Amino acid sequence: MLAFTCMTAFAQFGQRRGNPIVPSVKAEAEDFKPATTNQENKQFPAVNSKRQVRAQILAPKATFVGLDIAGKIYEMTKDENGLWTGTSEPQDEGFHYYQLNIDGANVPDPNSLYFYGASRWGSGIDIPAGDEEFYTVKNVPQGSVNEVYYWSTVQEKMRHGYIYLPNEYYKNPTKKFPVLYLQHGMGENETGWSAQGKTGIIMDNLIAAGKAVPFIIFMDNGLDTRRPGDSNQGFGGPRPQGQRPQGGQRRGGFGNFAEAFQTILLKDIIPMVENNYRVIADPQHRAMAGLSMGGMQTHSITLANPTTFAYVGMFSGGSFNTEELKDAADFKKTNKVLFMSAGGRETGMAEGDRSVVKAAESLKAMGINAHSYISPETAHEWQTWRRSLYQFAQLIFK
Amino acid sequence: MLAFTCMTAFAQFGQRRGNPIVPSVKAEAEDFKPATTNQENKQFPAVNSKRQVRAQILAPKATFVGLDIAGKIYEMTKDENGLWTGTSEPQDEGFHYYQLNIDGANVPDPNSLYFYGASRWGSGIDIPAGDEEFYTVKNVPQGSVNEVYYWSTVQEKMRHGYIYLPNEYYKNPTKKFPVLYLQHGMGENETGWSAQGKTGIIMDNLIAAGKAVPFIIFMDNGLDTRRPGDSNQGFGGPRPQGQRPQGGQRRGGFGNFAEAFQTILLKDIIPMVENNYRVIADPQHRAMAGLSMGGMQTHSITLANPTTFAYVGMFSGGSFNTEELKDAADFKKTNKVLFMSAGGRETGMAEGDRSVVKAAESLKAMGINAHSYISPETAHEWQTWRRSLYQFAQLIFK
Repeated sequence: MLAFTCMTAFAQFGQRRGNPIVPSVKAEAEDFKPATTNQENKQFPAVNSKRQVRAQILAPKATFVGLDIAGKIYEMTKDENGLWTGTSEPQDEGFHYYQLNIDGANVPDPNSLYFYGASRWGSGIDIPAGDEEFYTVKNVPQGSVNEVYYWSTVQEKMRHGYIYLPNEYYKNPTKKFPVLYLQHGMGENETGWSAQGKTGIIMDNLIAAGKAVPFIIFMDNGLDTRRPGDSNQGFGGPRPQGQRPQGGQRRGGFGNFAEAFQTILLKDIIPMVENNYRVIADPQHRAMAGLSMGGMQTHSITLANPTTFAYVGMFSGGSFNTEELKDAADFKKTNKVLFMSAGGRETGMAEGDRSVVKAAESLKAMGINAHSYISPETAHEWQTWRRSLYQFAQLIFK
Repeated sequence: MLAFTCMTAFAQFGQRRGNPIVPSVKAEAEDFKPATTNQENKQFPAVNSKRQVRAQILAPKATFVGLDIAGKIYEMTKDENGLWTGTSEPQDEGFHYYQLNIDGANVPDPNSLYFYGASRWGSGIDIPAGDEEFYTVKNVPQGSVNEVYYWSTVQEKMRHGYIYLPNEYYKNPTKKFPVLYLQHGMGENETGWSAQGKTGIIMDNLIAAGKAVPFIIFMDNGLDTRRPGDSNQGFGGPRPQGQRPQGGQRRGGFGNFAEAFQTILLKDIIPMVENNYRVIADPQHRAMAGLSMGGMQTHSITLANPTTFAYVGMFSGGSFNTEELKDAADFKKTNKVLFMSAGGRETGMAEGDRSVVKAAESLKAMGINAHSYISPETAHEWQTWRRSLYQFAQLIFK
């Protein structure tokens, strides 16, 4: 039951996909404040109380500058000093990728911080949200997100990931911890969960509030799966400039490249984590979750390895169905929590017969501890996944 | 003896400083390879065996595109598809900041990875170097670079830094380690030493080769020093867009803002590190070093706190002189190594009476264990500082 619409983050860059150029819109309020995702001391982009984005850039000799966000290119206007300004329609709460177009060139906004998504490092903007406290840095005991290089026996090269270690990992040097393996979506990489997802901040706050038990999170690259001898067209291998990997293009669909990542996860990542960190190395203390494509990888990998992970989360990544679990005795015996979520604006996943809510109800009826969560008024974007992690983290290893 | 030329990294962006626009130059060899600092699968910018940089960007409607690197703006040329290409003169080995100019807009190159320097997140390029092995990731026991948030009692806010923990920190959970406090330069931040400087990689390789003892490194932000009640013009506080902090502008020179950082280092950073990590908390196991402005902060802070740090390093940050150490009995008694370095192309610091070599000779004559190092054929840039760390790390805590 892969009711799945994963292309939102891809579809937004109009110059590549034919999105419409529209006029800059009138601001519904003039209370713009610099975005929290801006570079230090940059006043633009700014967001007003109606969640409209205003961008600004100096480009005296340009004849066209556009603000490319959420599927539309807003045509900016130039003042007598060559300063271009443009304002978007209201955006959803949370994080969005965006870019500028200057005379036909798609470029990052020099005022923003940069994030990896939509298959490129580029601009991102965080729109203030009513519930942003849960992912705001607070003066509570701090864990840390650590950069990890390790040798892959499968790929015969050094790989790169991030590990979240809770504060107690440092304070209590003999204690062992459970581990969540947490995966990003298509067009993203191992930096997504800590940068856009705010994993470390969410976990520190949850643990400090007593809402989650301390656990380790490992975040790796689910697209970097090319092995020696694989075709150059493989995910993670060299591709012609500007061309991005597409599900089904080469390995025959999401299932097959979940399989490619599965080998790396089971042979390289999990053994490396369990050998190098103080980990409780059994299925009851091992979880896997992911967003979008990472949720589909979680689905395939946990089904194919039914006794390996007791906790399973799919964030905007479809759902399990009763048919595939009917005879999966090992999965049912091992599983303690099966969590499925979606953004309220994700057609097909949030409402109706194919929603994660319906899926959870059917699974509960067959004895699975299934949970569903719908993120209010968000689409296939990071605010859905921040909230999903916040919910999921409170359910596991308890 | 602050023989000091710290403005190289600042001076390079021509549109702000009046650097010349020059024609793209002819390639001396057509063996261009994508830079290692490119985004995944991007073929440009590319570097040839003569160390020339070739950039490329699609900008069909633009009338001017320039490659802005090392103080010159190379005018690129457009083909019939709107693809602009330009080639620079040969560059020094190692890392350089650069940007593109599109019809008057200074923007990051969408093909490169982004780094913080010259007071902005923007494009960087690594030119292959004869000695790059020492900062190349290898399959050796890996430490990790960890992101740290902590409460500053001085600033009454959360601060942000990075800590390098050697592999043995994880493998041997009772062992305590010495600590080096390592600072960036003007216009840079706490990310510089791990991203551009490759600190973690250099240390892992050195420790694996038995050339350095395992030690911890803490890398913080030496410009974020504004305290509650300080003027808004302070370093690290809000500034008008596009304006950057300049030495002497407000606190009356480098000395004064070294003092501002000193308070944070001594009251917040060192206690936080010593309370949260397994550290040998005495002067004989404590080092401070920095590059450029960070070297000058090291100079001021270690002089003002003569019994706090046994190992002192100034990389392209001037030198100590015999006059200021003549009566500094406490400093001389505590100090085990005083290291001063410069790039071979840094006028005044590499050669002549005011060079770090001469300074080290004079200091040695008065009984200080002074060392000097000149990085061959590099300027006031990261290759000088990677090499300086590589040298300094082999001298300390032994």
